[in-house]
Amino acid sequence: MNGARAVIETLVASGVEVCFTNPGTSEMHFVAALDEVPEMRAVLGLFEGAVTGAADGYGRLAGHPAVTLLHLGPGLGNGIANLHNARRAHTPVVNIVGDHATTHLPFDPLLASDIESLARPVSAWFRKSTSAEALAADAAQAVAAAYGPPGGVATLVAPADLSWTEVGAPAPPVAPRAREVVTSNAVEATAKALRSEAPAALLLGGTAVREKGLVAARRVSQVTGAKLLCETFPSNLERGAGLPSVERLGYLAELAIGQLQGLRHLVLVDAAAPVSFFAYPNLPGYLVPDGCELHVLAGASDDASGALEALAEALGATARGGGFGVTDAAGGSGGENMQAAQRPERPSGALNTETAAAAIGALLPEGAIVSDEANTCGVFLPSATAAAPRHDWLCLTGGAIGQGIPVATGAAIACPDRKVLSLEADGSAMYTFQALWTQAREGLDVTTVVFNNGSYAILEWELSRVGAGTAGPKAKEMLELNSPDLDFVALARGMGVPATRATDAQELTAQLERALAEPGPALVEAVLRG
Amino acid sequence: MNGARAVIETLVASGVEVCFTNPGTSEMHFVAALDEVPEMRAVLGLFEGAVTGAADGYGRLAGHPAVTLLHLGPGLGNGIANLHNARRAHTPVVNIVGDHATTHLPFDPLLASDIESLARPVSAWFRKSTSAEALAADAAQAVAAAYGPPGGVATLVAPADLSWTEVGAPAPPVAPRAREVVTSNAVEATAKALRSEAPAALLLGGTAVREKGLVAARRVSQVTGAKLLCETFPSNLERGAGLPSVERLGYLAELAIGQLQGLRHLVLVDAAAPVSFFAYPNLPGYLVPDGCELHVLAGASDDASGALEALAEALGATARGGGFGVTDAAGGSGGENMQAAQRPERPSGALNTETAAAAIGALLPEGAIVSDEANTCGVFLPSATAAAPRHDWLCLTGGAIGQGIPVATGAAIACPDRKVLSLEADGSAMYTFQALWTQAREGLDVTTVVFNNGSYAILEWELSRVGAGTAGPKAKEMLELNSPDLDFVALARGMGVPATRATDAQELTAQLERALAEPGPALVEAVLRG
Repeated sequence: MNGARAVIETLVASGVEVCFTNPGTSEMHFVAALDEVPEMRAVLGLFEGAVTGAADGYGRLAGHPAVTLLHLGPGLGNGIANLHNARRAHTPVVNIVGDHATTHLPFDPLLASDIESLARPVSAWFRKSTSAEALAADAAQAVAAAYGPPGGVATLVAPADLSWTEVGAPAPPVAPRAREVVTSNAVEATAKALRSEAPAALLLGGTAVREKGLVAARRVSQVTGAKLLCETFPSNLERGAGLPSVERLGYLAELAIGQLQGLRHLVLVDAAAPVSFFAYPNLPGYLVPDGCELHVLAGASDDASGALEALAEALGATARGGGFGVTDAAGGSGGENMQAAQRPERPSGALNTETAAAAIGALLPEGAIVSDEANTCGVFLPSATAAAPRHDWLCLTGGAIGQGIPVATGAAIACPDRKVLSLEADGSAMYTFQALWTQAREGLDVTTVVFNNGSYAILEWELSRVGAGTAGPKAKEMLELNSPDLDFVALARGMGVPATRATDAQELTAQLERALAEPGPALVEAVLRG
Repeated sequence: MNGARAVIETLVASGVEVCFTNPGTSEMHFVAALDEVPEMRAVLGLFEGAVTGAADGYGRLAGHPAVTLLHLGPGLGNGIANLHNARRAHTPVVNIVGDHATTHLPFDPLLASDIESLARPVSAWFRKSTSAEALAADAAQAVAAAYGPPGGVATLVAPADLSWTEVGAPAPPVAPRAREVVTSNAVEATAKALRSEAPAALLLGGTAVREKGLVAARRVSQVTGAKLLCETFPSNLERGAGLPSVERLGYLAELAIGQLQGLRHLVLVDAAAPVSFFAYPNLPGYLVPDGCELHVLAGASDDASGALEALAEALGATARGGGFGVTDAAGGSGGENMQAAQRPERPSGALNTETAAAAIGALLPEGAIVSDEANTCGVFLPSATAAAPRHDWLCLTGGAIGQGIPVATGAAIACPDRKVLSLEADGSAMYTFQALWTQAREGLDVTTVVFNNGSYAILEWELSRVGAGTAGPKAKEMLELNSPDLDFVALARGMGVPATRATDAQELTAQLERALAEPGPALVEAVLRG
């Protein structure tokens, strides 16, 4: 077999089952090898941003990496923004970037560039294979590196001649490292702080916002009164009726400051110390209040939910409550945080961010996966969906827009039995709209709602927040998307995705209900103007 | 004034008049400053690949840089592929990349990344400003650096707090360096080689394929019999009736090998020694034949057309011929290369790559700018348009697809009085289709033809050429775009560009004629299937 086939077989043996790709000539042997290795599913994207974002979405749900196959430096470049998001999400992703043959690169052909320099900023692990014999073993190392912990992006550069050279066999899988168990000292130090009567909060992130961590955190909250907070943009927040509720830290520094005000102890559980998303001339960037002590219970490489369980034990919190219908007997302001089931009414009247959120809250299917890139259009979504049936909420982890549609695509491939709801702001949707075509091609059960308000509304907020004054006509033009209006129904149909347009709340509710009821992809354009 | 306004004023004083942008919060002070500096035109793109490609197209035609305004590492990342093309084209481009405030970056906020590492591979010049006072002077340096010579991408990172800090005044422009005049020794050495009777060719590239260089090269050819070749993907080839014709080196190494066969002298004029685009197991990568001596008349930083004129003088070539209707009296196989005017007949019958090329040759307007990303669909274009009225032909300089629509957009802004014809392969079109919206918004006179053959046809060629065998069903699926079919008419209309679909040669001709006759953008989908 050649090097390319050895790599694909090694990946399959390592548990990698899906290849998202937009290949080129330097990856042709990998493409040919796909037919020789039936266990590897191949999914084509029309643009590398769609490919890397899909790998991120897949990894967030599957818990194991997909592989991407990318074409030299420019192909990787097109995927960088969504790899940045994957890096911040600690998603396991393996990139294979084809490069010119080792004999050819010294001639500096037109597509040559410094792939390593492009890859390093988004890669937790980087290697360029130097021999055909090493290629498959490097791929096995890449998979292990992608697992971390913490998970991350592992990028392997494969020169074309290594992929076409005959080699002996695939390489054996490399066992990934396990997460670190947090020391009893760290647990005890945190417990001691929480035993004081001073106001305290747990700030959860990463793996701590899945069910196991949330349930343990709630036990801690029940006996200590500590507030449960989570990072602003979790990679995958498990939430909804029957799960402990947790308050996301606000995107706006002003809001986050209010949420953190008065705290004397802040316990970080796989979360960074809170800082504002951007700097503003008249606001602090570091948001931990003066006089508040920081405690790190678990870092990104640790078993965070295990640490929370150990903390609950140390605090003597018995496993009370949890699950549907169990009455919560614990006292304290932080105790009443098991989410009861309740949906908003089906909305009527004008379509705006509030009624749109109500429509989604009214209809969100049990077990849904929500890819949230609604941005300013989504301000009412957290409250409107908090008590919907249990679901996963995937956030814009790195702030690089263009994540939502690709992540929804990958999530649907990871979880074919679940409904995926992709909530998109108009400006962000236009970044990687091409991923809709992959949804149509693969028949994925994704319903996309594009909130069309005809502007980069977030920048209208930000312009004044950064002290840049009021937008003049030229500045205003840079923040508006309505000249000409974007027609998302036409765009979706152009890529084979059935689409409809809703201009009032009833229409949105009816169209969303229909789209969710039918298998396969669909798009609803929610016109929020006027 | 603040740092941002000082930068914009400095850019205007340096001759930079157009800002292509997709800004974010860290660039808001620049956006606000646009209203204070009316001389700077601001053009919004829906995606950074559209922004950087437009700056490339603008610079290729205007000969001076536009500025881009990009949002941190991910925004730059989205623009990298087209910056790679601009780098290979030696196009002057200035990037301003907003970054987090210097005080905020140490907190590693979510959007932070290593911008320098991302920028270096595509930038001839890179700087991160370290003080508000230095910011405007750095911008002036960036403009000078973008001019080169050779021209290139200059990237300036502007931390947000430097842009909002008050500063005294803009900085004075920095005079760009002039191109080097080639020494008489280099001219004489080349002349000596060409005076021999041995088979010789000039390989022209970069600035040598504009009228002045072509006319001088023809004089050299007339007296020496040297063949006139040019690089495979020139940034801007001036061609058509009344200009000397020059043969582009083939993309396929097999063809290029044939074009170079038997040469004993190859003179490089702002061109690199020919190498194949990719490596193939059974073909050489370096294409200069054995026994052929290389001579460098002019490098990328030299005055290449001046060097060709000096060479013609040294060879005693008088300025015979040139212009319409002048009979060419020179002997030798290389002498008969002034292009006479002749168009193909308007085609009829089935629509295929040949009849599509004929339609374009029959209608190409005088003075048109052609942005060529037709790839395999364009194999008949060079011959079908060679004798059309004079025009500019812009090629895929770096091989990173997604160049064509953005470059056409920028070219139209640089040359509002000329028709722009954007020739797109379906796969490439989907990379940066968003640039159509900018064409609609700015009312640009661009006619786009998308050749829809439902596949990445070039990869079907390449799969067998690299020795990867015949495509199995999974491999084949990775090379096909027809499941589902892309509807480019719907996609264009979704972004406000009027569009029609042609399924035979007459329809294409009629629709293209109508689109070219009307001002403003239009798209014609040419369905090449069946």
